[in-house]
This record gives sequence, structure tokens and C-alpha cells, in this order.
Amino acid sequence: MAEADGNRGGERLTVRLNPADNVVTSRTEIAANVKIAEEMVATLAPIPRGHKIATRKIGVGEPVRKYNQVIGFATQDIRPGDHVHTQNVAMKDFERDYAFCMDRHDTDYVPEKDRATFQGFKRPNGRVGTRNYIGVLTSVNCSASAAKYLAEAVKPELLEKYPNVDGVVALSHATGCGMADTGEGYANLQRVLWGFAGHPNFAGIIMVGLGCEVNQIDFLLEANQLERGPRLRTMTLQETGGTRKTIEKGLSLIEEMLPLANQSRRETCPASELTLALQCGGSDAYSGMTANPALGYAADLLVRHGGTAVLAETPEIYGAEHLLTRRAVSKEVGEKLVERIKWWEEYCARNGGEMNNNPSPGNKAGGLTTILEKSLGATAKGGTTNLTGVYKYGEKIDTKGFVFMDSPGYDPASITGQVASGSNVVAFTTGRGSCYGCKPAPSMKLATNSAMYDRMSEDMDINCGPVMDQGVSIEEMGTQIFEQVLRVASGEKTKSERLGIGDHEFIPWQIGAVM
Amino acid sequence: MAEADGNRGGERLTVRLNPADNVVTSRTEIAANVKIAEEMVATLAPIPRGHKIATRKIGVGEPVRKYNQVIGFATQDIRPGDHVHTQNVAMKDFERDYAFCMDRHDTDYVPEKDRATFQGFKRPNGRVGTRNYIGVLTSVNCSASAAKYLAEAVKPELLEKYPNVDGVVALSHATGCGMADTGEGYANLQRVLWGFAGHPNFAGIIMVGLGCEVNQIDFLLEANQLERGPRLRTMTLQETGGTRKTIEKGLSLIEEMLPLANQSRRETCPASELTLALQCGGSDAYSGMTANPALGYAADLLVRHGGTAVLAETPEIYGAEHLLTRRAVSKEVGEKLVERIKWWEEYCARNGGEMNNNPSPGNKAGGLTTILEKSLGATAKGGTTNLTGVYKYGEKIDTKGFVFMDSPGYDPASITGQVASGSNVVAFTTGRGSCYGCKPAPSMKLATNSAMYDRMSEDMDINCGPVMDQGVSIEEMGTQIFEQVLRVASGEKTKSERLGIGDHEFIPWQIGAVM
Ligand SMILES: [Ca+2]
Ligand SMILES: [Ca+2]
Ligand SMILES: [Ca+2]
Ligand SMILES: [Ca+2]
Ligand SMILES: [Ca+2]
Repeated sequence: MAEADGNRGGERLTVRLNPADNVVTSRTEIAANVKIAEEMVATLAPIPRGHKIATRKIGVGEPVRKYNQVIGFATQDIRPGDHVHTQNVAMKDFERDYAFCMDRHDTDYVPEKDRATFQGFKRPNGRVGTRNYIGVLTSVNCSASAAKYLAEAVKPELLEKYPNVDGVVALSHATGCGMADTGEGYANLQRVLWGFAGHPNFAGIIMVGLGCEVNQIDFLLEANQLERGPRLRTMTLQETGGTRKTIEKGLSLIEEMLPLANQSRRETCPASELTLALQCGGSDAYSGMTANPALGYAADLLVRHGGTAVLAETPEIYGAEHLLTRRAVSKEVGEKLVERIKWWEEYCARNGGEMNNNPSPGNKAGGLTTILEKSLGATAKGGTTNLTGVYKYGEKIDTKGFVFMDSPGYDPASITGQVASGSNVVAFTTGRGSCYGCKPAPSMKLATNSAMYDRMSEDMDINCGPVMDQGVSIEEMGTQIFEQVLRVASGEKTKSERLGIGDHEFIPWQIGAVM
Repeated sequence: MAEADGNRGGERLTVRLNPADNVVTSRTEIAANVKIAEEMVATLAPIPRGHKIATRKIGVGEPVRKYNQVIGFATQDIRPGDHVHTQNVAMKDFERDYAFCMDRHDTDYVPEKDRATFQGFKRPNGRVGTRNYIGVLTSVNCSASAAKYLAEAVKPELLEKYPNVDGVVALSHATGCGMADTGEGYANLQRVLWGFAGHPNFAGIIMVGLGCEVNQIDFLLEANQLERGPRLRTMTLQETGGTRKTIEKGLSLIEEMLPLANQSRRETCPASELTLALQCGGSDAYSGMTANPALGYAADLLVRHGGTAVLAETPEIYGAEHLLTRRAVSKEVGEKLVERIKWWEEYCARNGGEMNNNPSPGNKAGGLTTILEKSLGATAKGGTTNLTGVYKYGEKIDTKGFVFMDSPGYDPASITGQVASGSNVVAFTTGRGSCYGCKPAPSMKLATNSAMYDRMSEDMDINCGPVMDQGVSIEEMGTQIFEQVLRVASGEKTKSERLGIGDHEFIPWQIGAVM
């Protein structure tokens, strides 16, 4: 059988997502009998773009691996070069088997002496920031305008005197009253506010309330053992006597705080002090082939250097939570994830919807064979290391390694939780093109394809398109991302920071009735 | 029996909320045997502050009237001067009897020739605005920063050239994606955006989206038969190529729109073109005695002049909806209200809460006898005329008179709906002191007590405290409010407008799961 040489001028025909995989994904439509030079196989059938090709023999019943994760099992013997899809792959009972810790494995840590570092702000409590802001937080929407005008009252001429301060950012939100004063919605809001109030990217916090809101500042402080002091000031409009007086008083508090904040200096810190929020939004067919696995490789690198990577967006892993429970370091960690999945089923049911992440006919036409594979497109951002912790929305992350935080997929709500939980850098993959930015955590945007990157390059930090169109490997791209994370953590401005974005994207996840 | 003269130096001891009432409320603690000069009765028992005194004989079984509404029925014969409370009043089966239209009555319209006018902006479609803004609306939070920076890019030097334009206001919000694309939450958001896009206080609208959001601009326009044109422009970040280009393009669209907007001139319009949003927030023990009934009198005046007054805040009328169904102009209108009440019971139940507006022991100690009386404290804002319509949240109001719009009690969410439904002025009573402001509809704040007014006078437009502390009648106070509504509608700036508030209070009522 004559084979065409498919490797034109060094351009690869396929994407290999992990060295351990027994399938690769086609970059382009490939005819039958085309030699895939980089994989040393030849196609045995025509392969549509985005579909899978076996690179090794997979015996009936054996697992099919992509992203070094099981995406299904061969229902017949599969030969190298075969088209791998619904005709020869199925999930079996895998989907109902959490198999806690079955895929747990030792992390290949980088030796201490070789570990990466970055230039960060060490805080008195030992936490490390990547930025040095003063934050104006609000307990309720009723103090939103006062908080915004207070931040605006801090003029550039004043800030110039304090070169180590990145700015004063006011974060208002839609809720804080007209809500139950117990339960999930209240707990979410409290965790988010407490997480931001204690975030290491803030040198100091001014909290502004109205006075009569459900979400009382005093309750918040008490519940979280926060104490007022030179770095944490609080005010209410009702006590201070209205909008103008609150802005005036707030400005004098900020004037007191600025010299203190300006004493902070960047110093060399281990990469283990980085907590990287992993996020995707406006995904496309390339997400699971380029930016997401490349970010996953970067997450693996960060974990190997002792740091933390935070996957979130529970609806996007739905149906493939088994892939995470198998990577759990302990049964307890795996069970926490299952508990969150069950909570989501109930949350959707009570709101008249349902969870559903099955591959649609369109997904299947695009090459996605099973629900596992579909969800892996999103979870690929989390790399391959053990799952060391599972957290509620906005809950403080207290372990290193790869962790999961429960959240909606909705970008600003999810990232607000990730930052509240302690993330000090954000990496956001996007196919359609998101213009998201975050304060106080810098947010890098990773384009999944070159066409969008070129169109929106002023908003995109990294183009992962070359994985598709220039044969750049996932490892190369992931290493590039990791290095940029270190530079951004050290102070290099992201595109969204240069545009100033991040004042209007603070969106605590709202649950429950608005009363 | 000797009677003390309780009327010291012309100061009244009681508040009469309506001439037809058979009870008045004490302004202060009154001993037994004190003559109430203004009511020509003497107390037969000590009356705590805020409690009720009978001014006429009320036979057993006869209704007790406050705010010219039934608050309960005498359980024994009540004499003039008696303390009227739980010992001699109960609700009977009244609470379960909607008695549609039973209290319907002819409205005492002011003769056409004597009706009030104001200076408003007549729009091409016949609607009348009280302000002349250009609005930048967002379909999703993902375009919030672009919209805000676009509005900020319109510099004061440019606006100065267009003196008839009140400004460019960008309204961002927390939602628009990560949500179901059908159902109540989606419908709320669509009604709000469509209501704002067509609001007569806007001379023109720029709508900014991301591109891949659930809440697609095209769907929104189609569903509401809105057409793009010189007064309605749309953009997405993905199509335009990112943040900076969107701001640049948006600025050129606004530069085109400004001369058009500047052609608008105020002209004499009948008060019937006013739609007044009635709202309360941060209520206190005075709310139901001063600002709310005074605002109710103003609402009655507005209706008598042919205009519209919009009560909302469904949880606050809960348990007393019978008072509104009795005032309904038709059974259909009454049934719509009952349907909303049932919806709320279900909404709270599915969110793990329950509706409950029963007078608490504290309420009773303060003088509130029945659930009807308690809810009347809030509904008093709606005056006494017939209920001519019931609307869903943000639904376009298409009838004149006193109407009800379903909403939470939460101020910014409720008012966002009232304005979406067509309100062009807002009157907001507050006891604790709210600093709320709204764009594009001017929002007057009415203090319920003089102490708070004095403390927060920079944020308060009217002090209703003199009803309590200077013997000003509800009629006098209400007339003063009505006159100020006309002046504000004609362009007089409210306190919150002078402070610039209204850019961060656009809060569409979010219902359903965030996904
Ligand atoms: Ca996503
Ligand atoms: Ca997302
Ligand atoms: Ca501004
Ligand atoms: Ca209220
Ligand atoms: Ca309210």
C-alpha cells in the first residue's frame, strides 16, 4: 500500500496532547494511506479534522488515552492508524465508578535547588502577593457609588508619590441585601468578601457599607476573626452622614494607608507561593487541542515547582468527575468532589434546569467521542497531577498542588471565587475572544487560535494557535505559559492591566431568592 | 374626669393618615385622660408612642380604618379615645377573601383645564422623558469595562458643546451569560434591557456585547422589534476586535449621536406623562406614619392629574394583597396580583425560604396590630386610588393610574425594574438613610424623620419628619412632594444627581441557576 507523505515542509498533521497517549488528534482533514511522520503511523481510513488516530495497538477492552487520561475503552481491536471514534470506543461502566485515588501517582517535583522563583510582595502573615493594591470593598450595592467615587477621588498626582502601590480599586457588586442572612448565598458572599479583604495582592482595605444591610460589616469581621487596624478600615454611609462625607473620610483613611502600602517591596519568592486560577471562556473547537492542554502543562510545571493550580467551573467537568476522583490524593478529597457534583444536580433541578454535558451530535461530528473526552477539553487546563484538595466557592485554599474549587462556568463569577480563595494570578483560555480583566489578580488571556489572536491581539497575552498552525508542541507552549506566569507574577503587566480592566468584573456567585 | 390639655403650643399629639380613618396614631407617649384637641377626643387609657387611638365609635364587627384601608375588625365595641390594638381588633376571615373590586371607586380626577404640567422631552414615539441621556447598555458582564471606558471617553469638553444632553451613562451588570437562555431569569433580563433601550429618558442607545454570550443582542432586538438606526447602535467586542477598538468605534458613534440628542428640547407636557416609581428602603418606625402616607397622598394627586404611580416590592405587601385586590378595577387585574403572590410563595419555597410578613412581637410592641396594618406601612406609598394594572418585573406599563409591578423589596433591583417598565421619576422613602441614585430616572429621597434628615441632608431631597415633629399634615406634606416631583421632572436636579450617583445601581433581578 503506497503511502503519501503527509508531512509537508515539517508541518505536523496531528497534535499529540501527552506523550503517554495512544491517540493523536488531526490538525486537518487527512486522507487514507497518509503517513503521519511525527507519529510513525499511516492512516488506515480518512480522518476528519479534529478526530483521533490510534498511534499504537489498543486491544479490545483496553483504555483509550488522550491528555494521559482515559476517555473510553476499545470495543474492538484497534490498529495503529485506525480512526478512533464511536464505532470502536465506548465508556463501559467507567462513568459510575469513582475509583477514588486509583490514578494517584507521585508528583515529579523539581529538586528544591532548581525551583523557579518570582518577585513578589511578602505580607506580614506570610502570604505572598503579585500586586500591591489598596482595595475599597462594599458590603452591599447601596454603597457602590460611594466606594467608586472614593477610589476616583484618589488622584494620579497623589498615587505618583507612592510608586510601589499599583492603585486603589473599588469593587462594587449587585447584592448584600434583599437576601436571606443564612444559607448558601450568604455564605458565598461572606467567603468572597473575606477572601478579598485578606488577599495578599492588597496592602490594605477600606470596607464601605450603608449601615442597615443584611450583610453587616461587623458580622463579616467577627465571623472571620478580622480586626480593624491601619490596614483594614471600615465605614458606613449612615454612620458617617452620607455620600460626600464618606468619600471625604475615606480619602483621609487612604491617605494614611498609602505610605504604609508603599513600604512593600518585591523580593525573591519561591514559585510555590503562586496560586494560579485556571479558567476558560468563549471556548471553541481548538480549546481542547491547543490552549487548554498547554495551560495544563504549565499547571503541571507549577505543581512540580511546589505551587498551586486551581481548576473550577463545575458544570464543565460534569459527567467526567471520575477522571478527577481517580486522581484524588485521598478518598476524602474525592468524596468532597462527588458531594459538590450532587449539590449541582440539586441546584439545577430546583431551578428548573438540568446538568447535561453529553456530547451532542455536533460534538461527535467534531471528533468528540465520549462525555469524558468532552469534559477533558475543559479539565485539560488542570494538567495531570494528583487532585490534592476540593474547595467550596471562594473558600481559602490551604494546600499546595492541583486543586478544584466549586463554581459556575460563568467567567467573572468563577474567577471572583478563585481569587477569593487565594489565586494571585489568573490564566484564561479563550477561543471566541474574551476581554476579561481582573483586579487585584493579574489575568493573562490565552488565545486558542491564531485568527482570533490576530484580530484581538490588544487583549490577548499569548497565542496558543501555533500548536495547530506551526507544529509547536504542547510542552513548548506550556513552558512558554509557565514562564510568562512567573514574569506576570513579578510585575509584568498583562494586556488587560494595560487596558485598565478589572473594576467592573467582581461578581460574587449569587444563590437563592432575591427578596 | 379632668382632662389634661395635650396640645402644647399648637403641636399635635397624633397623626391622622386619612380623613376617613376612625383611628389616629400617637406621636408620643400619651397618658390617660389627655385631650387630643385636633381630634376632639380624650384618651381613655395610656397610649404608647406609635399606637392607635379611636376617634369614633367602632361597633363590634365594624372595620378599623387607617390610611383609609381596613386594617382589621373590632372584636368588641370601641369607644372614642380607646386604645385600639390586639385586645380589641382582629382580622377575621378577611385575609383569605380577595373580594376583587369591592373597594373600587371613581377617581376624583382634576378637571382637564386645571391639570398640572411639567417641562419634558417629547420623543418621536410619543413617550415623554424627564432627562436626556445617551445610554451605553451591556448585554453581558463581559462587556462591562468596555462600556464604562466608552462612557468615560466622552470628555466634559465634548459634552459642553451639547447643553441639552444630560450625559452619557454606561450601565453594566453582573449577568448575561452562564444562565439558561429561556425561563424567568432570561425573561427578566430581556425585559429590563429592552425597557432601558426604549426608555424616554434616553435620546439614544449604544449597546455593547462580547459576541458569544447567551444574551445575544440580535435575539434581544428581534424579540422586541427594535431596529438599529441613528438612535440605536450595537457593537460586540469580538466583531470589533477588542477593547480599545470598541471604545474608539463607540466614541465615534456617540459623536454622531450627540448632535441628534442635542436637538431635544423641554416643552410643556401634561402631568399624565409622568410615571412615578414608589419605593422604600431602610424603613423605620416612622416610615408608615410620615413619608409613606405622604408619598401616597402625592401618588393620589398624580393619579388625579392623569398620571401613573407604580408600587412594587411584592414581599412587602405579602399577606395584605387583599387590600390591593379590593381596589382592583377588574377581576383580571386582581387575579394577576394573586398569581404573582403565588409565584413568590413558590419562588421562596424552592430557594429554601418562606414568605412571612406577620407582625412580630416587636412590631406589636411598636403599635402594629395586624399583618394588614404592617403591610400598609409599605403600601401606603400607593395612596388610595383604584389598582388599574399589575405588571411583571420590568414589563412595559401601558395603563394610567395606580399600578403594581412585581419585584423584590431590594431597592436597586426593584427600581431597575420600575424604570425598565417606564417610570421616569423615582420617589424613595427611607428611615435609616439610603444614598441611592438612579440614571436615567431622577430619584428623590424622602426622609421619614428629621434626625436622619439632618444627619444626611446632602443625600435627602425632602424631610417628612415635620409630620411627626411639627404637626404638618399628610396632605400638606404630600402636596409638597407632588410639587417637587413636577419640578424634578422638569429638570431640577435631585440630591443624588448632584452627587453624580446612578452609574453602579443597575441591578436586573437575577432568578435561576448561575451555570
Ligand atoms: Ca468554559
Ligand atoms: Ca468560564
Ligand atoms: Ca469614572
Ligand atoms: Ca422596603
Ligand atoms: Ca425597597
